[in-house]
Amino acid sequence: MSLNSPQSGTTTKSESANVQWGGRFAGGPSEIMMAINTSIGFDKALWRQDIRGSLAHAAMLAHVGIISPEDEAAIRAGLNEIGQEIEAGRFDFSEALEDIHMNIEARLSDRIGEAGKRLHTARSRNDQVATDFRLWVRDAIDGLDQQVASLMRALARRASEHAADPMPGFTHLQTAQPVTFGHHLMAYVEMLARDRGRLADTRRRLNECPLGSAALAGTSFPIDRRMTASALAFDRPTANSLDAVSDRDFALEYLSALSIMAMHLSRFAEEIVIWCSSPFSFIRLSDAFTTGSSIMPQKRNPDAAELVRAKTGRITGSLVGLLTVMKGLPLAYAKDMQEDKEPVFAATDAAALSLAACDGMVRDMTANTAQMRALAGSGYSTATDIADWLVRVLRVPFRTAHHVTGRLVAKAEEKGVGLAELSLADMQAEEPGITEDIYTVLSVDASIASRTSEGGTAGDNVRAQAARWLAALDNTATPDTHS
Amino acid sequence: MSLNSPQSGTTTKSESANVQWGGRFAGGPSEIMMAINTSIGFDKALWRQDIRGSLAHAAMLAHVGIISPEDEAAIRAGLNEIGQEIEAGRFDFSEALEDIHMNIEARLSDRIGEAGKRLHTARSRNDQVATDFRLWVRDAIDGLDQQVASLMRALARRASEHAADPMPGFTHLQTAQPVTFGHHLMAYVEMLARDRGRLADTRRRLNECPLGSAALAGTSFPIDRRMTASALAFDRPTANSLDAVSDRDFALEYLSALSIMAMHLSRFAEEIVIWCSSPFSFIRLSDAFTTGSSIMPQKRNPDAAELVRAKTGRITGSLVGLLTVMKGLPLAYAKDMQEDKEPVFAATDAAALSLAACDGMVRDMTANTAQMRALAGSGYSTATDIADWLVRVLRVPFRTAHHVTGRLVAKAEEKGVGLAELSLADMQAEEPGITEDIYTVLSVDASIASRTSEGGTAGDNVRAQAARWLAALDNTATPDTHS
Amino acid sequence: MSLNSPQSGTTTKSESANVQWGGRFAGGPSEIMMAINTSIGFDKALWRQDIRGSLAHAAMLAHVGIISPEDEAAIRAGLNEIGQEIEAGRFDFSEALEDIHMNIEARLSDRIGEAGKRLHTARSRNDQVATDFRLWVRDAIDGLDQQVASLMRALARRASEHAADPMPGFTHLQTAQPVTFGHHLMAYVEMLARDRGRLADTRRRLNECPLGSAALAGTSFPIDRRMTASALAFDRPTANSLDAVSDRDFALEYLSALSIMAMHLSRFAEEIVIWCSSPFSFIRLSDAFTTGSSIMPQKRNPDAAELVRAKTGRITGSLVGLLTVMKGLPLAYAKDMQEDKEPVFAATDAAALSLAACDGMVRDMTANTAQMRALAGSGYSTATDIADWLVRVLRVPFRTAHHVTGRLVAKAEEKGVGLAELSLADMQAEEPGITEDIYTVLSVDASIASRTSEGGTAGDNVRAQAARWLAALDNTATPDTHS
Amino acid sequence: MSLNSPQSGTTTKSESANVQWGGRFAGGPSEIMMAINTSIGFDKALWRQDIRGSLAHAAMLAHVGIISPEDEAAIRAGLNEIGQEIEAGRFDFSEALEDIHMNIEARLSDRIGEAGKRLHTARSRNDQVATDFRLWVRDAIDGLDQQVASLMRALARRASEHAADPMPGFTHLQTAQPVTFGHHLMAYVEMLARDRGRLADTRRRLNECPLGSAALAGTSFPIDRRMTASALAFDRPTANSLDAVSDRDFALEYLSALSIMAMHLSRFAEEIVIWCSSPFSFIRLSDAFTTGSSIMPQKRNPDAAELVRAKTGRITGSLVGLLTVMKGLPLAYAKDMQEDKEPVFAATDAAALSLAACDGMVRDMTANTAQMRALAGSGYSTATDIADWLVRVLRVPFRTAHHVTGRLVAKAEEKGVGLAELSLADMQAEEPGITEDIYTVLSVDASIASRTSEGGTAGDNVRAQAARWLAALDNTATPDTHS
Repeated sequence: MSLNSPQSGTTTKSESANVQWGGRFAGGPSEIMMAINTSIGFDKALWRQDIRGSLAHAAMLAHVGIISPEDEAAIRAGLNEIGQEIEAGRFDFSEALEDIHMNIEARLSDRIGEAGKRLHTARSRNDQVATDFRLWVRDAIDGLDQQVASLMRALARRASEHAADPMPGFTHLQTAQPVTFGHHLMAYVEMLARDRGRLADTRRRLNECPLGSAALAGTSFPIDRRMTASALAFDRPTANSLDAVSDRDFALEYLSALSIMAMHLSRFAEEIVIWCSSPFSFIRLSDAFTTGSSIMPQKRNPDAAELVRAKTGRITGSLVGLLTVMKGLPLAYAKDMQEDKEPVFAATDAAALSLAACDGMVRDMTANTAQMRALAGSGYSTATDIADWLVRVLRVPFRTAHHVTGRLVAKAEEKGVGLAELSLADMQAEEPGITEDIYTVLSVDASIASRTSEGGTAGDNVRAQAARWLAALDNTATPDTHS
Repeated sequence: MSLNSPQSGTTTKSESANVQWGGRFAGGPSEIMMAINTSIGFDKALWRQDIRGSLAHAAMLAHVGIISPEDEAAIRAGLNEIGQEIEAGRFDFSEALEDIHMNIEARLSDRIGEAGKRLHTARSRNDQVATDFRLWVRDAIDGLDQQVASLMRALARRASEHAADPMPGFTHLQTAQPVTFGHHLMAYVEMLARDRGRLADTRRRLNECPLGSAALAGTSFPIDRRMTASALAFDRPTANSLDAVSDRDFALEYLSALSIMAMHLSRFAEEIVIWCSSPFSFIRLSDAFTTGSSIMPQKRNPDAAELVRAKTGRITGSLVGLLTVMKGLPLAYAKDMQEDKEPVFAATDAAALSLAACDGMVRDMTANTAQMRALAGSGYSTATDIADWLVRVLRVPFRTAHHVTGRLVAKAEEKGVGLAELSLADMQAEEPGITEDIYTVLSVDASIASRTSEGGTAGDNVRAQAARWLAALDNTATPDTHS
Repeated sequence: MSLNSPQSGTTTKSESANVQWGGRFAGGPSEIMMAINTSIGFDKALWRQDIRGSLAHAAMLAHVGIISPEDEAAIRAGLNEIGQEIEAGRFDFSEALEDIHMNIEARLSDRIGEAGKRLHTARSRNDQVATDFRLWVRDAIDGLDQQVASLMRALARRASEHAADPMPGFTHLQTAQPVTFGHHLMAYVEMLARDRGRLADTRRRLNECPLGSAALAGTSFPIDRRMTASALAFDRPTANSLDAVSDRDFALEYLSALSIMAMHLSRFAEEIVIWCSSPFSFIRLSDAFTTGSSIMPQKRNPDAAELVRAKTGRITGSLVGLLTVMKGLPLAYAKDMQEDKEPVFAATDAAALSLAACDGMVRDMTANTAQMRALAGSGYSTATDIADWLVRVLRVPFRTAHHVTGRLVAKAEEKGVGLAELSLADMQAEEPGITEDIYTVLSVDASIASRTSEGGTAGDNVRAQAARWLAALDNTATPDTHS
Repeated sequence: MSLNSPQSGTTTKSESANVQWGGRFAGGPSEIMMAINTSIGFDKALWRQDIRGSLAHAAMLAHVGIISPEDEAAIRAGLNEIGQEIEAGRFDFSEALEDIHMNIEARLSDRIGEAGKRLHTARSRNDQVATDFRLWVRDAIDGLDQQVASLMRALARRASEHAADPMPGFTHLQTAQPVTFGHHLMAYVEMLARDRGRLADTRRRLNECPLGSAALAGTSFPIDRRMTASALAFDRPTANSLDAVSDRDFALEYLSALSIMAMHLSRFAEEIVIWCSSPFSFIRLSDAFTTGSSIMPQKRNPDAAELVRAKTGRITGSLVGLLTVMKGLPLAYAKDMQEDKEPVFAATDAAALSLAACDGMVRDMTANTAQMRALAGSGYSTATDIADWLVRVLRVPFRTAHHVTGRLVAKAEEKGVGLAELSLADMQAEEPGITEDIYTVLSVDASIASRTSEGGTAGDNVRAQAARWLAALDNTATPDTHS
């Protein structure tokens, strides 16, 4: 029951608020309890998982002889038909039946009678919901994992394309040293690879089956938990029934992984916004990912990037929300834990949209390489190369080389020229050992080409790194919807 | 577009995830952009506020001569009819028109033609949405304020009823001193009064009208901002147009106030859960606010209280989410700010439900006064009264009196008796000055009755405090739906 | 006890960790309990407040006859001397005495004997700490309030100076319409004024005195709570003793206000970072608020702005931390509440530093008005002025005017000229009614000057707004340390 | 520079605040910049890691010929001496040198001259600090991992001891079914095992060496990054230099893992607080982990447990703080990232203390098995066993068996007897098929013994699970300081 529309209309304050209050819970306690207690409004998202879980449970019950093969067949047929009804939008969800589990079970008993009433043997809503929700999160991880891989592929392709194209490398948003645009994009590939790693670890850790833990104590029926675990593609059953129904670590770890990933995407989105600004003009996004206005058609607001940047709020907020819910809850199941699903659903939506939007923008964006190159060479960005030359060639101690370079930059600034425009005499006035050779390190391209240390920005490095990633990602053979 | 249902069904991992990804954004970039950019799915909740704002704007435009009276009349009639359409559920919301504002304006132009195209003169979506959202939050505050008042009234009535009924006063959940159940309930009245104060301060501070700030710079039309502000019951127009479209303080302050209130309710809910546990058995809730199970009809799970306790997660998470969104945003409007509404809507729902549930539980609960009284006297809970007697009557320094009392309690514990069962000789062995008079302070009732300091737990104090609050709350003359 | 230095040295993993673990709590349980329980390490910051509270309490005890005038005089003298000892750094804080309250009281008894043992009559550590902490927060509010006022004054002065200097007004970091730099700065004055309002409301609401609530139930001594409240400049005593010792709303509301303020400062800091970037070059900060490096002396990293932007994390984190602590705590006092101080102290430090740094940067920064003016006119930033002219002069409906303008901008873009360079014939080809008069609205200065609506960016508006604020701020007569 | 002590004393509001403000930054801009910019106050905690990193760096520089063996020897000797100075507390940290890295390097140059100035060749503060901080976090993980293992061992031992001792199993804090105390404790072992898994995954993912990434672009010196990585026990060098200096995932993932762990501990702490309450009386803690008061020596406030419960706030707040800091930061290094350390240090302290306190309490606590057994049998806790009997023996469908059981419980409640006291005739009135055999499932011990499903609460299950864990934990051969 949504209360999102305060019934204020054009009435005065007290009237409107009265109507609102009266209107909400006119039915008294029963209406309030229904409104706060019922979860069918959101947990119907679990219907596929609930049916899968029940199919596995029924098959196991028949296998060990707790129900008859005939009952199992009836249950299987009934659940499959219910699945089709829901898929087709023909299922009538009932608030009075509270949640997806009771909705489906009640419908099953309507359809197949007695056999339906045997389905819930040797399980409880507590282990059932824990199982369904784990399956849902596992499915969500699998979907997001492919989206992350797709985005990595898109980035690596653009990086390959721009492996040696210079851009100003910033620290503090101040020009520091030249890097390549490809190198910059590959930084995000590394971040996203860690995100995939976190999702994979979360998946592995959650992949234990709570089914058979019953309410909290296990059951006296001779169930085969390994059979249901295996049928649902879990690695094994959970080891402690009390823990199994009290645990929501998998949701929290999942939200943590999404929060870190969303932070990564927010950094990329921030860069897109800045790069699209008129003073920077590093890239251009097409109309597909910007909005204009009927009045200023030249304007290309990077709305998609801004929304990606903002979605990190939803995701972090969801994590904080669920951590708050779980704080200080005694074992075992408490109804508080019903508040676990909406944050997970909301964060999953936000993450999937953000990944899709970033993927689209990476493929869409056009780099203004001339502008990036021009700025890469400004601001004495190769000063470090001078210092390194002094150390390498003249064996000047590094800290001393720093000071010499500082004086050279100051001189260039004073004269209003670039470092390459300083005369050899000017150079030698600061450090007599300097030779013509120093001019070989002063260009943007020379600076970039020299950074051949492992992980450095030299074009060949970047090209190789991108190729390695593309090969690794191709091996996973996931389809690529945009290309 | 909700992605809440990973399309996993019974397919294998990679199949299911592919379908999912493919199915989501098969249409490519335009589908992604639509999915992330469109807000009509949630901002239609603003429809009443949007119509109110447009009515006020049109009236002002006509008043200062920017549009004709005939156009204004047509706009007014058109908007009122659209309002009726939406209210009746006959309005067809369009995703392509993105948000509630464009949905309504487009429908208006369909209905009334040219005049509709004049409505947006001298305003922009930026000031329009800021105005609508402020109106919504203000309406929500008014609704919640009445709910808080209703809950305070319910608590004060129960407090009045139990003004002198003893219960153990806990610190660290250990019995400390006897208090009255009424006194305990009145503590929540004080907390909620502060919550109302915060809501009122938020309302007062938000009550400035952004309308007329236009996109960010104000407008060259000769508008009368005081007229629209007044028509919408704002105290005045906002003072700086850039700030007006960039500001979401009102939403953040509102969420802060709700977060503190939710924390209060979580404490009350925790107490209800503990009080309902079998070892405590301080109160009993009826079936209206508990759930049983078909198998254990004697069980009364305090689900409503647990959900109230949990809802604090949603509300705090919403606050964190919006603070995260706003962090580091350059002025003026950025699309990030579209992420302001869903957390506010979700938190409002959670707060309204929590208040309603607490209100219901307070009216519903039955106090087990015998159990509370029995426990109030256990655990040497009147030891402090001995110490105070030593100070007051014998003029023993307080710290010394503490030590004497400690020895008396140790002696009682050793003998397995209560303090009142210690003989005078036993007492005098520790402190020769003790007289028979000391026994007058050892009962639970005497202890409570003696706490007459301002705000103390003496029954008369509590009764008077409850009466004061009930009188104050009656003056606001809000209706009372449950009683 | 800080554990910040894992003892890893050059040892191997298991060795180092063993040493670490062993070293930490070699003393066993008592060491662990001391480490987790003792608060003197941080709560000694409350020493001034603790002494003030005790002075007021002793004076009241003497006034109502609970202690003698001689004892009160001894206590007063003793406490004042202890204050001097602490101030001079000669006080020996003891971990064994746990907290500041016991440290001071024990020292007092050492100094003055019996009288010292009477000080704690009719109070408890629970109401004492609540009183001290409120006093501390109130003092912190007073200090921050002056810092905010100082920053507002600095901004208003710079705004006055640049009241009519154009800069590009951004939405989505895309050039939208020209505004003035002064107008932009004044937006922050409005934000900060709301911050002061929130701090003032928090102060008003916290300004009730818990002293005399004792452990939780009040006291049987005939104390005069109004006297202590008044002596400590509180407005009144708190109304319910249970609430008084359980309540930390004042800290949470304070942290909420700081979180919103920190968000404001993070937006300003983000703008400073962007404005200082070489492509923008809107402002320049001196060496006082930037860091260079010995190698790149031309580099001016806006470290202070970046740190201000980051401090919002500490402050929001502190709020979340304390909300988490308080969630679900049963009444009355629980030891959990000892975790209230460090987040408040950390957030206060972060806020004070951020305000000081912003204040300093506002005074320090040099505006590059030529650059801002140049960019203000680029990007067809006066397109809105054309649309408004069409509405105002030709009575074209606004939405239609939008479309005409769109076509004019497209034509200008195609021709590679600004809007003012389009010929009248070009204009009339889109809308025959256009006359020469339209050229009067196409300049940056004309655009700005026309925005005379209340709160709009017209120079006179900004000048008047700044003057109003400077007058208002001068009335509070706070000193100004930087000017 | 700490601002924790508002200088309010006994002065009036405006005086005190002026003093405060004036006193803080009397020195003007330079003082402010020093206060906000300097990190030596907290990052000196990195001194061991900084020295280790520099030793490895210098050895590599010599190995590849960038510095001479003599210089390397001088550096090594110098750094080792500095380490001894710091360890002995004889090192004079300088605020003017800003951070631990410059403090150590400057001291080194003081000591050994020219050679010291060569140490910083081919590295930058950006990769240096990233390396040091990773080392610190890795060390902290190793320390905490052993603490978690120790706590698991303590729990498993107590679980083994109480493997078959009944306690009431709660859902919603309402008695649901009997479980064993050992089973309950083993649930925490499972939780903590997941915590260790998360820490191990974090360690594995962070274990790449940033050294050699230089400022952001890599370096032109022919360094050997694999050598330094290996010397510092990293698995490999980081793959992208831009990412390496911009990344704080390791800190965020670490804080996420700690947040989930802290939530686990908060649940355990909450249970300890409830179990220690007088109505529950499930366990008793000794004086080692409780505090009394001189006045109520019988009172055992579970302060340690409450503080553990509260520390989750600090840890979650730290996570939120750092997520907030990192949100939306453009690459590469920004000064914002200096705000990464204090939350990590604070959370580590809080986690280490919480683990130590839980470990101590588990070893310390005495279980009141009689009280737990008594409550385990109350509240018709074996009703589920009746339903299961009906299904198993009479083949009644589960949902039907539920309803029959409900009626039996209602009958028992009405008669005021337990289920075992109902006569066979009473039973058969509801379900004629019931035989004497049903009485075999009605006792607490029978109920527990029947729960033999994998992970169920049967004593043999619990004993075996505890033994498995103890064996697994013994294999890691970590010492055990308390036993």
